Amino acid sequence: MNAWLNRFPVSLPERLTSPEETAALELRSALPELAVSLEKKEEMGEGFCLRRVGDRIRLLGGETGLLYGAWFLMYFCRLGGGTLPDHVESAPRYSLRMINCWDNPDGTVERGYAGMSLFFRGGRLAWDPARIRTLARMMASCSLNVLCINNVNVHDPAQLLLEDGLPDLARLAAEFRPFGVRLMVSVDYSQPMRHGIPTADPLDAQVQAWWQETAARVYRAVPDLAGFLVKADSEGRPGPFTYGRSHAEGANMLAEALRPWGGMLVWRCFVYNCRQDWRDTETDRPKAAWDHYASLDGQFADNVILQIKNGPFDFQVREPLSPLLLGMPNTHKALELQLAQEYTGHQIDLYTMAPMWQEIFRDLPEDRIMAIAAVSNWGDDANYTGHPLAAVNLFTYGLLAWNPGVDPREIVSLWVRLTYDFSPEDKGTLVALMLSSRRVYEKYTAPLGIGWMVTPHDHYGPNPSGYEYDLWGTYHKANREAVGIDRTTSGTGYLDQYPPELRDRYENPRTCPDLYLLFFHRLPYAWRMKDGRTLIQRIYDDHFEGLRETLEMQQKLQRLPFPEEDRNIILERMERQVHNAREWCDVINTFFFRLSGVPDGHGRRIYD
Amino acid sequence: MNAWLNRFPVSLPERLTSPEETAALELRSALPELAVSLEKKEEMGEGFCLRRVGDRIRLLGGETGLLYGAWFLMYFCRLGGGTLPDHVESAPRYSLRMINCWDNPDGTVERGYAGMSLFFRGGRLAWDPARIRTLARMMASCSLNVLCINNVNVHDPAQLLLEDGLPDLARLAAEFRPFGVRLMVSVDYSQPMRHGIPTADPLDAQVQAWWQETAARVYRAVPDLAGFLVKADSEGRPGPFTYGRSHAEGANMLAEALRPWGGMLVWRCFVYNCRQDWRDTETDRPKAAWDHYASLDGQFADNVILQIKNGPFDFQVREPLSPLLLGMPNTHKALELQLAQEYTGHQIDLYTMAPMWQEIFRDLPEDRIMAIAAVSNWGDDANYTGHPLAAVNLFTYGLLAWNPGVDPREIVSLWVRLTYDFSPEDKGTLVALMLSSRRVYEKYTAPLGIGWMVTPHDHYGPNPSGYEYDLWGTYHKANREAVGIDRTTSGTGYLDQYPPELRDRYENPRTCPDLYLLFFHRLPYAWRMKDGRTLIQRIYDDHFEGLRETLEMQQKLQRLPFPEEDRNIILERMERQVHNAREWCDVINTFFFRLSGVPDGHGRRIYD
Repeated sequence: MNAWLNRFPVSLPERLTSPEETAALELRSALPELAVSLEKKEEMGEGFCLRRVGDRIRLLGGETGLLYGAWFLMYFCRLGGGTLPDHVESAPRYSLRMINCWDNPDGTVERGYAGMSLFFRGGRLAWDPARIRTLARMMASCSLNVLCINNVNVHDPAQLLLEDGLPDLARLAAEFRPFGVRLMVSVDYSQPMRHGIPTADPLDAQVQAWWQETAARVYRAVPDLAGFLVKADSEGRPGPFTYGRSHAEGANMLAEALRPWGGMLVWRCFVYNCRQDWRDTETDRPKAAWDHYASLDGQFADNVILQIKNGPFDFQVREPLSPLLLGMPNTHKALELQLAQEYTGHQIDLYTMAPMWQEIFRDLPEDRIMAIAAVSNWGDDANYTGHPLAAVNLFTYGLLAWNPGVDPREIVSLWVRLTYDFSPEDKGTLVALMLSSRRVYEKYTAPLGIGWMVTPHDHYGPNPSGYEYDLWGTYHKANREAVGIDRTTSGTGYLDQYPPELRDRYENPRTCPDLYLLFFHRLPYAWRMKDGRTLIQRIYDDHFEGLRETLEMQQKLQRLPFPEEDRNIILERMERQVHNAREWCDVINTFFFRLSGVPDGHGRRIYD
Repeated sequence: MNAWLNRFPVSLPERLTSPEETAALELRSALPELAVSLEKKEEMGEGFCLRRVGDRIRLLGGETGLLYGAWFLMYFCRLGGGTLPDHVESAPRYSLRMINCWDNPDGTVERGYAGMSLFFRGGRLAWDPARIRTLARMMASCSLNVLCINNVNVHDPAQLLLEDGLPDLARLAAEFRPFGVRLMVSVDYSQPMRHGIPTADPLDAQVQAWWQETAARVYRAVPDLAGFLVKADSEGRPGPFTYGRSHAEGANMLAEALRPWGGMLVWRCFVYNCRQDWRDTETDRPKAAWDHYASLDGQFADNVILQIKNGPFDFQVREPLSPLLLGMPNTHKALELQLAQEYTGHQIDLYTMAPMWQEIFRDLPEDRIMAIAAVSNWGDDANYTGHPLAAVNLFTYGLLAWNPGVDPREIVSLWVRLTYDFSPEDKGTLVALMLSSRRVYEKYTAPLGIGWMVTPHDHYGPNPSGYEYDLWGTYHKANREAVGIDRTTSGTGYLDQYPPELRDRYENPRTCPDLYLLFFHRLPYAWRMKDGRTLIQRIYDDHFEGLRETLEMQQKLQRLPFPEEDRNIILERMERQVHNAREWCDVINTFFFRLSGVPDGHGRRIYD
């Protein structure tokens, strides 16, 4: 079983009838001493209200609201919060709090670092009911309510989920339903063509009819399906561009098919030229999403949601907020995060995401989006997330999706208290260490927001020029004098996509925050940073510091009283992280030293 | 059917009894007008003698000598050589003229660029008899007489060739026998451990007994097996080092097991540290073979042959001769070449190897080796070698293995005359183009002998720093001032492994031939070449020239009257080669421009 759930052992029957029943069973098991009455108020939906009258507690809520209220109460009591206030009320900020699994029908997980798929084996749905129930419970315990089970890159035969696989899909949906979780399916835009229709053109009547019939068939099997998720015209996926149609036309056609059933159509905006010529300096990949979508504002049906990654590139350690999230006021938008540590250490390196998400919500007014999604970081490893401490990212994401106003650092602290029986001092050490982990990782990897200096394809470990002459639009153009791409108005113009206050923050390299400096600017190595150091010295310093702090982190972790099973995994991975950090530090420093010829100002060893 | 054999159509019966019978059938089919009497003289072995007495021709030879004599006569007559001299005598310089296939039991071919294996499917031997007969005939027609059918990296279940697979092996040997070809098998040094023996230590009596019994069993099934081929203690392969034994002890134990049956033990010398730390400047990979083997001279049994790659690295476009080939006077040695175009264009780019091999034999006295081997370039593509013109490398290799004294350029010319029905002018164009192809490829790829600027693992296309921070010992250490590794006496000392005349040729960068300059020296970009150009300008010039010459090559090829099937393949690959050459040219020039800051002296465009 996983992490924080260990505190709440329960034995649930194999057949649960409703979230309300689940809530009651959870409460009876976790808080048998407490007299709690559950009162279902359909109109409250996912929200709940707790009223204390003396020793008695009334929990009011919609069906799933009761379940979320139960978990609130369980956390509150388990953490010794004292007397429950007379009145507690809560409702989720976003009604769709989604997990996207990149699971393939053959059981592999794209960018998965915690084992194989929990849902697929040998081309079809197949699962261990006990593990699925735990997973569903994990989701409920942190308020997640939509689960897209298959990869957005729909590899054959994942299309069968909408065809022969429907009975399995319905059985799986039944496993999740008592935990308030609805399924979603990634669909292949060209699927009608598997059925003798010569086109997938969204304006073709046959195509429209096929999707309408398919939606009807799917919803008869899974009436509460959340909807479809689509990656179209992206990295080789088919889409409406093939037929000269806009993405509004493409998405609306599917949305129309889902409308009678209340289904949503989630449409990913990860569209860019992934066959860019490295010699082409006109194209600037971060501009792509805005360029493709901004002009379509207001044209999408009201059950379409555009799902936009947090940054304009692709889940790098540090990116500014995607400007598209701030634009398109007349379009439903969802923020997409990635729990899977694709570019952030493969769940080998410790990387707690809360500080990163805090930055996102600092710049993203809550009301600009109406839903939130994250790529899962789980698999069939015994602990679900590979690295035991990676579970915090799932938990934090869930609570943040309920209430993005909470400081995510508080959630990390809560998770540690729930997960480990530590002294206050040890708890403080671990929380501090987790909260610093992203910054440490950032220091020893690519400098100051430049990103992409990773081993191509695999994305673990350094390769400073691995993508430099490739097709992916991710260049640093480091030469003997300078490094970076000028994305200001006088450069590629990417910064013009932002509202004035953000553009002003980044536009001037003298005032641009250091950590974003090389994301937006091309600067000489001799550039003076605000603190007086040169750019090249800052690069060296960060890398030496990152390595040193990793070694310190290792020492601290070794002293913490983790349960043995977790301890073994954590320390073994920490050793690999130390190796990784040393490799990054030396490779990146050598790379810049060979280019710049500038020795370290403190005489530390840089290999030549 | 393949290339030059098209000139000699024949229908051979499914069951052939001997090379002598094959020779007679070939002659009858190819030269029905000629009265040739075959006279077997066992003592002549592979040699033959042709005597003309008026209209009658006597062909004398050992059993396979008759077959080689028949092919000599067929080539001579088909090419209209005029009257046969009264007396022709020939015998091979090396008695083992070997092909090494890197074929895996699953049907893939490691570094194969012409389709799948001709021998393996689904974990076992399986073949198309007609194609195998053509392959055997192809080998006979260019004198090749030993065929090692499985990869030196013995992947499970290739070990079964010595066990359950023996009946299949015997049937395959029978297919090749009438063409004078004997099989050889790559073996896994740890194979005894699959049979309950807890060690593979060569000094262990149980291990020795297992190999002796195995050899006996194998030779009962295939009495004329040429022997075993072993890659030990290399790139993860098991070997005697595991048990603290020398490679002489390791090889001799296997040789002992083969001795009663007349088998040879071919032992590859491709041993180096493939887990080198890029920060380590003491280790220099080209030194590895000499360091591992030279001190063992005289210690190997007389049926052991050390197989040594032509260069000290690994089949780069240009390497100096491996010094080990010139050393170890009291050891049997074989030269290993690679027909498969691993680093030389994947049989997409045109690359005729004759000029490269001519350089090898210029420096390698014939008597320093007693055998010759080459990694195959064939697969189950209809034309066997993928690129129709790649067949020339197989043909040239065979004839060169018979007589390394021949100018291999002559063989290329012969192959073209045999293969295409061209006018003398077109023939001249094609031969010139083929003979220049290696130099053109060299120009647009890594400069002046430095090698390794290829896409890691795949080895097609440029990646100037792809191996720079990796474990393989292949570094150029280019910085803003200079590039290369100093391998002279004052550097890593690699040059000290050579005899004086070769050391003197390379030691001084002022006199070292340009094309080897960066193999042996670290030089500043401002270095003055013999012709007055700077090193950096020479790099730019070569790359622009290489691209221009590739475009010219394309135009010439388009005008040549190839048969349609060949033409389509040749021109389609040529298009890919042009793309490849442009990519190399621009990436390498940009890489050095970013480092050096020196613009092109002729104002040509280098991307920044």
